[in-house]
Amino acid sequence: MEEVLKRIRQFRDERDWMKFHDPKNLAMSISIEAAELLEHFQWKTGQESSRYASENREAIADEVADIAIYLFEFADNIGVDLAAAVHRKLDKNAAKYPVDKARGVATKYDKL
Amino acid sequence: MEEVLKRIRQFRDERDWMKFHDPKNLAMSISIEAAELLEHFQWKTGQESSRYASENREAIADEVADIAIYLFEFADNIGVDLAAAVHRKLDKNAAKYPVDKARGVATKYDKL
Amino acid sequence: MEEVLKRIRQFRDERDWMKFHDPKNLAMSISIEAAELLEHFQWKTGQESSRYASENREAIADEVADIAIYLFEFADNIGVDLAAAVHRKLDKNAAKYPVDKARGVATKYDKL
Amino acid sequence: MEEVLKRIRQFRDERDWMKFHDPKNLAMSISIEAAELLEHFQWKTGQESSRYASENREAIADEVADIAIYLFEFADNIGVDLAAAVHRKLDKNAAKYPVDKARGVATKYDKL
Repeated sequence: MEEVLKRIRQFRDERDWMKFHDPKNLAMSISIEAAELLEHFQWKTGQESSRYASENREAIADEVADIAIYLFEFADNIGVDLAAAVHRKLDKNAAKYPVDKARGVATKYDKL
Repeated sequence: MEEVLKRIRQFRDERDWMKFHDPKNLAMSISIEAAELLEHFQWKTGQESSRYASENREAIADEVADIAIYLFEFADNIGVDLAAAVHRKLDKNAAKYPVDKARGVATKYDKL
Repeated sequence: MEEVLKRIRQFRDERDWMKFHDPKNLAMSISIEAAELLEHFQWKTGQESSRYASENREAIADEVADIAIYLFEFADNIGVDLAAAVHRKLDKNAAKYPVDKARGVATKYDKL
Repeated sequence: MEEVLKRIRQFRDERDWMKFHDPKNLAMSISIEAAELLEHFQWKTGQESSRYASENREAIADEVADIAIYLFEFADNIGVDLAAAVHRKLDKNAAKYPVDKARGVATKYDKL
């Protein structure tokens, strides 16, 4: 992760792009890239999306990487350790979705 | 990263949620969480977004984690190594945005 | 439509909100509200989404209205007649998706 | 509006696309098109976005129309009168954002 972050920072700074990369603009960019990933599955069923993803792995991986690049930089810029944030959020999610209540259902926590 | 992935998989499997997690649904979820991050900056200027992010680091970190959890699982489910995908995409981006042309400007590559 | 627009403008101006409503912020708001609509269908199949929508019509209508309010104001602020824009876009779409090629398939125009 | 809806329905039915247009897929499509509109303003300030929108009115109008086409069809398919829904939502918003409290500030209603 640290190696990936180093390269993302270097890519940005060589181009003098930090001035564009405030949290608002990076959050917008994450949303825009997320929609590009979503577009691949626009008219497909869930099942078709699985086959499509395995048959178009490189194109999909590029979209995933676009989201990750902005997401990693966003976290880095505001001083958030992403792995630690994920662990803490999974702790919170575990409390919101206890296994015995959430098992096998997609109900939102406030209706469990 | 491998440790984070292990925990994400375990969290999902204890709840028997794999049946909901096809690529289409995970891509939708990434978009939904990305919009929740974006909402924090909805009416702010870029500068205000920087101050807001540093003053609300935990809330923002939770939103970032929500995106990351779905993104990591998405990549994992379709067999994509996220770090490798990021490196390969940065190579492509470096070719699309040569330093001498892209320096200091936010122009899209097809108009550089 | 003109009556709806009049009320949207009045709502905004009574609150002195025009200063926040530049095209970037309104486009962000459209995306944020679109994701709130999407969230209703997050883990549902297409078929389940139809039943859910008809059983939760008022909640869904509110989300649709949130998108529409920002979309109508966006078009109004930049001097775009929305009905005319839709007609013109449907003309373009008809050329991109000729009936004999597009019938019954969800293929994107550049692959038809 | 009724005339626009008639044309949208006809466009869809000539192509036998109703089978793809369940609420989930249309909501996804609204999000995808909303992100395409957003992309126009990706690295711009609010002020730059105003100038850009007035200089690129036709391109922007096309993006707005793409969102509107899916949004109008979505409402139509689930039996929602969009103008009525907007009026009802503005009534709710007026209660959530009283003029004397909301004037000149972008604070969310739950913090007003």
